[in-house]
Amino acid sequence: MSSPLKVIPLGGLGEIGQNMMVIECHQDIVVIDAGLLFPGNDMPGVELGIPDTTYLEKNRDRVKAILITHGHEDHIGALSFLLSKIDAPVYSSRLTHSLISNKLKQASIIKSANLHVVEPQKIISAGIFEFEFFRVCHSIPDSMGIAIRTPFGTIIHTGDFKIDHTPADGIPFDFDHLSRLTKDGVLLLCSDSTYAEIEGYTGSEKLVGDALDNVIKEASGRVIIVTFASLIARVQQIINSAERHQKKISLVGRSMNVNIKMALRMGYVKDSGNVIVSIKESRNLPLNKVIYIATGSQGEPNAAITRIANGNHPDINIVTGDTVVLSSSPIPGNETSVAKTIDSLFRRGARVIYSRIAPVHVRGHASREELKLMINLTKPKYFLPIHGEYRHLKAHADIAKGMGMSEKSVFVIEDGEVLEIANDGAQVAGRVPSGTIYMDSKKADETHDNIINERIALSRQGIIIASVVISGDKSSVIGSPKLRSVGFSEEHYENTALKSASKMVQVLLEEKWLKVLDWDDIESKIAETIATHIYKETRKRPIVLPILETNK
Amino acid sequence: MSSPLKVIPLGGLGEIGQNMMVIECHQDIVVIDAGLLFPGNDMPGVELGIPDTTYLEKNRDRVKAILITHGHEDHIGALSFLLSKIDAPVYSSRLTHSLISNKLKQASIIKSANLHVVEPQKIISAGIFEFEFFRVCHSIPDSMGIAIRTPFGTIIHTGDFKIDHTPADGIPFDFDHLSRLTKDGVLLLCSDSTYAEIEGYTGSEKLVGDALDNVIKEASGRVIIVTFASLIARVQQIINSAERHQKKISLVGRSMNVNIKMALRMGYVKDSGNVIVSIKESRNLPLNKVIYIATGSQGEPNAAITRIANGNHPDINIVTGDTVVLSSSPIPGNETSVAKTIDSLFRRGARVIYSRIAPVHVRGHASREELKLMINLTKPKYFLPIHGEYRHLKAHADIAKGMGMSEKSVFVIEDGEVLEIANDGAQVAGRVPSGTIYMDSKKADETHDNIINERIALSRQGIIIASVVISGDKSSVIGSPKLRSVGFSEEHYENTALKSASKMVQVLLEEKWLKVLDWDDIESKIAETIATHIYKETRKRPIVLPILETNK
Repeated sequence: MSSPLKVIPLGGLGEIGQNMMVIECHQDIVVIDAGLLFPGNDMPGVELGIPDTTYLEKNRDRVKAILITHGHEDHIGALSFLLSKIDAPVYSSRLTHSLISNKLKQASIIKSANLHVVEPQKIISAGIFEFEFFRVCHSIPDSMGIAIRTPFGTIIHTGDFKIDHTPADGIPFDFDHLSRLTKDGVLLLCSDSTYAEIEGYTGSEKLVGDALDNVIKEASGRVIIVTFASLIARVQQIINSAERHQKKISLVGRSMNVNIKMALRMGYVKDSGNVIVSIKESRNLPLNKVIYIATGSQGEPNAAITRIANGNHPDINIVTGDTVVLSSSPIPGNETSVAKTIDSLFRRGARVIYSRIAPVHVRGHASREELKLMINLTKPKYFLPIHGEYRHLKAHADIAKGMGMSEKSVFVIEDGEVLEIANDGAQVAGRVPSGTIYMDSKKADETHDNIINERIALSRQGIIIASVVISGDKSSVIGSPKLRSVGFSEEHYENTALKSASKMVQVLLEEKWLKVLDWDDIESKIAETIATHIYKETRKRPIVLPILETNK
Repeated sequence: MSSPLKVIPLGGLGEIGQNMMVIECHQDIVVIDAGLLFPGNDMPGVELGIPDTTYLEKNRDRVKAILITHGHEDHIGALSFLLSKIDAPVYSSRLTHSLISNKLKQASIIKSANLHVVEPQKIISAGIFEFEFFRVCHSIPDSMGIAIRTPFGTIIHTGDFKIDHTPADGIPFDFDHLSRLTKDGVLLLCSDSTYAEIEGYTGSEKLVGDALDNVIKEASGRVIIVTFASLIARVQQIINSAERHQKKISLVGRSMNVNIKMALRMGYVKDSGNVIVSIKESRNLPLNKVIYIATGSQGEPNAAITRIANGNHPDINIVTGDTVVLSSSPIPGNETSVAKTIDSLFRRGARVIYSRIAPVHVRGHASREELKLMINLTKPKYFLPIHGEYRHLKAHADIAKGMGMSEKSVFVIEDGEVLEIANDGAQVAGRVPSGTIYMDSKKADETHDNIINERIALSRQGIIIASVVISGDKSSVIGSPKLRSVGFSEEHYENTALKSASKMVQVLLEEKWLKVLDWDDIESKIAETIATHIYKETRKRPIVLPILETNK
């Protein structure tokens, strides 16, 4: 046991950030989760971010297993990328397995992948490690925490979790199992920090069920409920309410249809009363018999409810008497677009109910009291807050210290930093390559910072392209410099500024620059002269791109 | 009294949106507030928005007065634009007057402006109207509501308000005065809706003072408090705490210095213990004697705390032991940049305290119980919720209806809609031109939607500029088509796609397009061919701009 145990978060921070962790001991490595990041407005054009897995690629042969805690994109979305580089068995629960299979099928690598369904309590070996899944509650069924037996002791990794004593699917957090797993002591607890700032307990899914049931019962018109397609338990509660109040449900939006139909096939959702009908069928029903469940809880531009709110959904128009329930809350960064959707729905005459004014949503992560409970249940020797932004990790660390853990046993580390645990103590020891690789599409190259910066600059006040054709002997300008703009302006006044800039450049070219300057210097003089002139006239700073051509 | 009273909100919705209202009766008009809008991330490059005042310009001679409730930008920021078009006396409280004067000085129109300081309870005539200011509480001193006597009855306009029984400046909401103003009945209440979603009461400024006092007392290192430069009462509380605990304060950031120094001169802030020192002096003090008050509570890129968080402030570097207090909360749309600032401060080793984890901020607007109190105090015949986004107006209207006001007496109207009140009832009657004029700078033309859309398109995946020089006889391509890109990519793989696109265009031009197509058609063919090719190779959709030139 001379080489220590290493624990390395690799996956990037952020509530919806990609999550990945590396655990290694001697020659063996296991990876927990392989998530995707959906970048925000500050990264225009970028569709996805995946973890930099250079470290794993270099140690390819040592990877004995990839363990997946649950089926959300920020935990499974980068798996196809990882499996294209590393060949290792993937272990997950049943629903997660199905979601992964769908994903890999899309990426056409299902055949080569080595996927295994694992039931909780089953002990599995992966090199020097043994691991066992335990049931937690979260906003998607079949969510697991993982106990990993290492030569130095047991690591408990919570995955994303909350503690729900009345979950909608009737499958609570498995305290029994966790207590058996921890009875010989816990070396390290890695616990979900997403909600470490929030006092108290996260509400039970049952509260939402009751609130939605009430809305459905009272509604004298249609009810449109907007939620995440992966919130399968919530859809079940809506189905139960619909049956209870003799109403019917149609699913709106592609991902809602795909997810719920899969969940129905697999038995995660039951519709014994046949309340789910097609949109077409729903049109023949009295309005007060109709419930729609739609996607778009984050104000995504192409999602069902956004199109409904904007009046351009092919199937559904808001009519007076409609009740829209946003059974969700905005992920940080989406507040403004969600607010716009709510406003638009109100303007179209809907009654709109949302989490700020009614208990129609609870979140999927543990709040401070639950986090304390987890620390108390596991009584770890060392504590590593995971999942969340830096301030969440800090807040979670403070919780642990407030419960009596010593400064030296609590670690707040960033991606790529290595937590090393040996028999004589634990320490942060160096780092491995890490970071996020941003991509404009799954087929694109990496999008580097400088490209993002160019995009942001372009979006500020557009671009002016100045094209000039010079005679081959560099003696004269052919025609006159043409200034075109995109994203700048088309107003009279600013066009005048463009025209005067063109004239200015022509005179300077012919009288001065062509005679004394090199090609490159001429280009930069053109750009500089136009930028200065435009700023002076309009106080605007578009990008200026000069294009010099010769006539032969 | 045949012509009815008209009330027209003109200023745009939004918590930090521009606010403006028109009240007219017979030939006379008064305007309340003239605010500015700071557009969000969805309007890149746009620096400000001002209300469309076409209606007022057309009725220029009828405007008898402009009444300003308080000195925040969203209530005074468009005044210089309005006064450049309309010549009317401006009435405001003392502090507001100073802030307006500074603004107009910058816009060089101070000399022609006709500004008046009004004390509460003073009755002033403006055409057919009489008005009187009454003191409310808000997050800037000298905030006023307005009672406007009209031939049809009294209008109460609350301005932005909250009800604070223990305000930091000792000047509470003037209930007495309001009750005298309303004793003969209120025709119409126009009341601040910003917080109509929030249950209960907004906390008193004193709570924040206590929380900050505690932080200042306990801190064993420097304390950096970040807040709005206009939150003058809060700065006073910090000064009091500093004196109590024998510490010194330096002001950091231009607007903090300008505002607080003006407030000191005018007596709104008192520093009898001389605790305010220069940053230079603060450097000679022991760390636990130093308090900084800094700007940047919204994560603005150039504000003091953002630069401190990013490690590029000229005067202040975070050192271990520093406590940073964000005594503010993010305005909608700024959540992500504020979160980043907090994370960066933590990473630099500061202890960070913010409103989510401690009571270091209260907001300036009334919550639901206060809104009910206002309705009960005034018992209006008609109710018009103002200030806030559409859902806030709706929520506020629901409060009034919940208190027994009838459907027919509560109005939710949008900008430009006219609320007409006559002796026999009130109704929404038509609309006047309204909206927001967006500008990239104070010197720029209006920025129209299509330009914004171009910018957003540019920011997605950049632009490819394809320049081609054609021989004058349209027989051949001079050189080869050059493809340049901005914000697209510079990676090997995608460059290959650009090169193959160039070759493709050259072949098609020479073998086909030059022979059979018009100039314009050639340009669109070039754009289309490149876009299709690039999408096929990279799944990216940059803008493609073709530039065709001839060699003579």
